[in-house]
Amino acid sequence: MSRQLIVDVHTHVYPPSYMALLRARKTVPYIHDPAEGADPRLIILSSDDDPATPPDERGRPVDASYSDINVKLDFMKKHDIDCSVISLANPWLDFVPKDEAQEWAERINNDLESTCADVNSEKDKSLFAFGALPLSAPSSIVVAEIKRLRTLPHIRGVIMGTSGLGKGLDDPDLDAIWGALEETQLLLFLHPHYGLPSEAFGGPEVIARYGHVLPLALGFPLETTIAVTRMLLSGVFDRFERLQVLLAHSGGTLPFLAGRIESCVLHERKFVANGGDTPGPKRGVWDVLKTNIFLDAVVYGSAGLQAAVAAGSHDRLMFGTDHPFFPPLHDEDEKWPSVTTNYKAIDSCFGEKDSESIGMVLGGNANRILKLGFD
Amino acid sequence: MSRQLIVDVHTHVYPPSYMALLRARKTVPYIHDPAEGADPRLIILSSDDDPATPPDERGRPVDASYSDINVKLDFMKKHDIDCSVISLANPWLDFVPKDEAQEWAERINNDLESTCADVNSEKDKSLFAFGALPLSAPSSIVVAEIKRLRTLPHIRGVIMGTSGLGKGLDDPDLDAIWGALEETQLLLFLHPHYGLPSEAFGGPEVIARYGHVLPLALGFPLETTIAVTRMLLSGVFDRFERLQVLLAHSGGTLPFLAGRIESCVLHERKFVANGGDTPGPKRGVWDVLKTNIFLDAVVYGSAGLQAAVAAGSHDRLMFGTDHPFFPPLHDEDEKWPSVTTNYKAIDSCFGEKDSESIGMVLGGNANRILKLGFD
Repeated sequence: MSRQLIVDVHTHVYPPSYMALLRARKTVPYIHDPAEGADPRLIILSSDDDPATPPDERGRPVDASYSDINVKLDFMKKHDIDCSVISLANPWLDFVPKDEAQEWAERINNDLESTCADVNSEKDKSLFAFGALPLSAPSSIVVAEIKRLRTLPHIRGVIMGTSGLGKGLDDPDLDAIWGALEETQLLLFLHPHYGLPSEAFGGPEVIARYGHVLPLALGFPLETTIAVTRMLLSGVFDRFERLQVLLAHSGGTLPFLAGRIESCVLHERKFVANGGDTPGPKRGVWDVLKTNIFLDAVVYGSAGLQAAVAAGSHDRLMFGTDHPFFPPLHDEDEKWPSVTTNYKAIDSCFGEKDSESIGMVLGGNANRILKLGFD
Repeated sequence: MSRQLIVDVHTHVYPPSYMALLRARKTVPYIHDPAEGADPRLIILSSDDDPATPPDERGRPVDASYSDINVKLDFMKKHDIDCSVISLANPWLDFVPKDEAQEWAERINNDLESTCADVNSEKDKSLFAFGALPLSAPSSIVVAEIKRLRTLPHIRGVIMGTSGLGKGLDDPDLDAIWGALEETQLLLFLHPHYGLPSEAFGGPEVIARYGHVLPLALGFPLETTIAVTRMLLSGVFDRFERLQVLLAHSGGTLPFLAGRIESCVLHERKFVANGGDTPGPKRGVWDVLKTNIFLDAVVYGSAGLQAAVAAGSHDRLMFGTDHPFFPPLHDEDEKWPSVTTNYKAIDSCFGEKDSESIGMVLGGNANRILKLGFD
């Protein structure tokens, strides 16, 4: 290629089939179509579903950027992105009734696969995808879907929330799924959705005072951090040493808190190493960060990015945008500040002299790690 | 001085008067004296107060390191610390009945002042202190105590939790207190205690599985981050531009999440700048981090420390130990791993060639910022 390859590993879609699923619902998550042809509203968080707000104004507008792949391709063009690894946005299939989950997962994953195939055969941009899992179905069905996903040419991993089978990611019942992911070496993209209880922020009134800032800026990253820490503490990475996990938003806060987690583990009297009755994790958090974990570079500042590089390494970090979330509010024709901020953070983190690391974070790492096949 | 000055700005005490206050209580926080002369037990968190655990085993042992200043001085000697800025450990006076708060604050702050004066006149180590505030009393009493603290020769600031007057730190009723702190230029040491609701971690059973790791490693830092973000979002730093705040544990997670906070603020439709009806903060988080906020270096790893330096700067970061918490579990004669980890992180963050920055973080910054008077 004549210029640096740029791959976006954090970019979401709501395929038409998923839109249909959400439109049929009346409880969170759901899509509400206002009268008068305004953009549909996506009510994705409980905090968005305020009965005091008219349904036509609840949640956020969900325009074509969510479901029309051509809008995604235009966004990629505007921001010089060559390849996007698309994934279903939260909350994926977490809420789907048990007996419908397999069918929806197959339908949506097939949609993703065919979207990628169509684009790659016709356009000058390319797409790959992370599949969605039917987690409300029995584990055997989830495992079968993972193995099926491995056979689809454009699927490079799976996206998962922090709920797992409903009891968090330290649930031993997830072992069959971790095993299948390890065996297939499909990357697990771990992404937040549920946030923190509103009491963490002082209650719903405090949250409402500042819109979405507290849950999105602080709740989301902590949710991810808690989920992966529970995996670590319960020994998931001891039992599945080759499990590969991509953490959203540069790990939530994991790179920053890794040292504190390690220190608290070393000082925990409950763990066997300190005379207690609980196994505790065998492998340390720094080891896991450099062996099992990959981070996206969606952290909006070089301060956070420096911690991400130091905790993981420059060859485990991958550019992302979080499209179609955080669109510009003022000038729709401009480049998205949410994207340019992340580009600038990467430049500033490594500096002009280290164009090799910049290139790796922008696309080289994703190409190698996800086997995208670019020269 | 013949060698580098080392100042510990994060080191706690329970003066005898405070021990007496806790011993008289039967609900969290309280001290329980087991039979047979074992060390008293400190039950400081609700999660420690499990009725299924016998009272003699509840909470943590609270030995002389909490209340005997000579133990602190021995700890300082062992770890080459020249000067400690001691502060009352959590939960300070948050729980004291309204009509007793003034008396307890004066008594405890006078204890702290006289402890510092006695040590400084007799020993080769020196002590300064952050005072405690009678926050359950009327604001006029709190303001009066701040002004009185300004006159005590060894008081260099105040320590405060995240509850404020009970409604968090974006409570407009705190303005009189912020004003008094700004006027006196006493540093506010903001420290966590309350953590996050147990549901954030999956409920009490999940927490119990891993001892104190989840609340201490993740809950504490997020509590601090939420508190200071609420201050920022509500305009505290717009109204009190000279307020000086020291954030515990390198800001909780603020250095890592600062970029995400800034991005969420810029994209929040509720704020006036984006056409909404809420003022929103005028000053940005990066500006506040470089103007109002100081960070301790209690983050147990160079990854976190790099973010702290990048978000703030090397001249706003100050060494700390969190003594007497996190003592060694295995060999009581060894240097504390919780302390040596932080020393190593500072060395590794700046590297051998930047001994000037290392010196500033170890003691030079504290000396200058807190006007400790070392040559």
